[in-house]
Amino acid sequence: MRATTIHAPYDMRVEEVPDPVIQQPTDAVLRVLRACICGSDLWAYRGEAARQKGQRIGHEFLGIVEETGSDVRGFKAGDLVVAPFMWSDGVCDYCTEGLTTSCEHGGFWGAVGHDGGQGEAVRVPHADGTLVQLPADAASDDHLLTALLTLSDVMGTGHHAVLGAGVREGSTVAVVGDGAVGLCAVLAAKRLGAERIIALGRHQVRTDIALRFGATDVVAGRGDEAVEAVRALTKGQGAHCVVEAVGTEQSMSTAVNITRDGGAIGFVGVPHGSGTGLDLGVMFDRNIALRGGVAPVRTYIPELLPDVLDGTIDPSPVFDLTVGLDEVPDGYKAMDARTALKVLVAF
Amino acid sequence: MRATTIHAPYDMRVEEVPDPVIQQPTDAVLRVLRACICGSDLWAYRGEAARQKGQRIGHEFLGIVEETGSDVRGFKAGDLVVAPFMWSDGVCDYCTEGLTTSCEHGGFWGAVGHDGGQGEAVRVPHADGTLVQLPADAASDDHLLTALLTLSDVMGTGHHAVLGAGVREGSTVAVVGDGAVGLCAVLAAKRLGAERIIALGRHQVRTDIALRFGATDVVAGRGDEAVEAVRALTKGQGAHCVVEAVGTEQSMSTAVNITRDGGAIGFVGVPHGSGTGLDLGVMFDRNIALRGGVAPVRTYIPELLPDVLDGTIDPSPVFDLTVGLDEVPDGYKAMDARTALKVLVAF
Repeated sequence: MRATTIHAPYDMRVEEVPDPVIQQPTDAVLRVLRACICGSDLWAYRGEAARQKGQRIGHEFLGIVEETGSDVRGFKAGDLVVAPFMWSDGVCDYCTEGLTTSCEHGGFWGAVGHDGGQGEAVRVPHADGTLVQLPADAASDDHLLTALLTLSDVMGTGHHAVLGAGVREGSTVAVVGDGAVGLCAVLAAKRLGAERIIALGRHQVRTDIALRFGATDVVAGRGDEAVEAVRALTKGQGAHCVVEAVGTEQSMSTAVNITRDGGAIGFVGVPHGSGTGLDLGVMFDRNIALRGGVAPVRTYIPELLPDVLDGTIDPSPVFDLTVGLDEVPDGYKAMDARTALKVLVAF
Repeated sequence: MRATTIHAPYDMRVEEVPDPVIQQPTDAVLRVLRACICGSDLWAYRGEAARQKGQRIGHEFLGIVEETGSDVRGFKAGDLVVAPFMWSDGVCDYCTEGLTTSCEHGGFWGAVGHDGGQGEAVRVPHADGTLVQLPADAASDDHLLTALLTLSDVMGTGHHAVLGAGVREGSTVAVVGDGAVGLCAVLAAKRLGAERIIALGRHQVRTDIALRFGATDVVAGRGDEAVEAVRALTKGQGAHCVVEAVGTEQSMSTAVNITRDGGAIGFVGVPHGSGTGLDLGVMFDRNIALRGGVAPVRTYIPELLPDVLDGTIDPSPVFDLTVGLDEVPDGYKAMDARTALKVLVAF
């Protein structure tokens, strides 16, 4: 079969790789229908996260089960399923508590020796714990299938961010970051009943999606300018709930400075300097909490799925470019150049 | 009247200062019965926090109301009251929400132009918002009065720490720091029903108090040794709830490393390097939350007071040395040398 591999920074290839086979009785093999490229894949693409030459990549996908190991109980060949961005056994202490990202037998797609999502098929370890069943008729609904793909990462991660930020009915929320996760955080905040949602971002095509997702205000500045603008919108106090969906020093510093005393930052941007942006003295004086991390999206899928199926939320606008598998390298280029927000890979 | 002043690092004096008078109609003047020296006063004592020459100091005290301004409604001369370590108006947005430390008209005792608690009397701004009434007969109960004094800071701060750490019935808690706040956090955790309380500390006289306060385990090592010991006590996972009550790089680093995935650190140690001890990459991977800051103890006094009055909790053992006002400089020396845990000043 064919799959995306990374050979060096900026050197993405689509090449022939071995077909996945069942290795453990708890495995399934899945034929990919939809995959995509994540903002966090760009850390590897740009050489800021190390990868071995030829390593597989991609961690968001859905598709059809082709084969199951002898211990798999919940799925059979032909099932339409979505995979979260990490696999997990579903039975360890952490999985039982819903923290599937800390699973004792969990792992990342594309890790050395494992398939990535940007390929024709994937071996899925711990299929029963990892996969979530989708209605069979969704397979013939192009638009719905695209929306459902966001459950593998960005929609669940946006949901994790707003939970971390403490969003509830009536909240005032500010979202730092206009990537797909930031936009999904806007949608997730709206879904939980936030009254005021301030989206920070400088790209109008993206902030337009934020408005469509429920943002009530857009702040286009950065740094001090952004802080002043958010404070002007919030009686000078800042937002009680703030989402940090970037991971850089500046984005975290902005997040701290726009948080209201006693508020919380839900952080889901993979840290690339954001620790330095965290002024603990300010957080101490103002009782600002920090809560978040890698999102246990597997846990959130059963809650978010019905809302995607019935159209209560439609995260599909985060995809603004569709490519075939052979064009995945072009998709990376487009996301790196920010000419694409998020790239869908259709098989 | 006489009060403690700081003239330079290690130069504490007790000298004649002007008697406090009502300046605002919301003021009260309070005659101090009990005060004490706080671990955080040592930052000023050691020159690590700047003070003006002759500045007043001390932020924990209780006493008798001597005089009230014309707008004070809740108190009259002769009332026995305790003051939290900051004053607050009780009516602003933040006070209404319980975050009295962010009060729009709040401030710290001993700030330039304001009285400190380590003196014979104190002008109390916003008396109605700040002070809390105590039963009159407590004034003649030496032991109880000492226990009640902890409500001005350390007991409320310990309570804030365990709330930040998410302690509840059945929790496993680890407390980093064997100072008075750390010990009060042990007591606060026990009060909220924690099942297992691991106290980290190397001074047996202090960890003995921790055991008396409800600690189930004591870990005497530091750094990696402490981390391993806590993990050995917790199935290798760490504690779900961790209190950081020191504020240094090492204490925060230890706190992060002994927190279970998905757990929370309640931080109340005034940051003096602790930001550097915070590894955001680890916190992200393991979904560790950080929540805390300067404790709004004014809000907690009404909840904690009945338990102190009826003996459900007795935080008084945190005081192990009593001095008169003239001996306050010796009290600082003893706390700096760690020969005293916490010094009570009796008038």
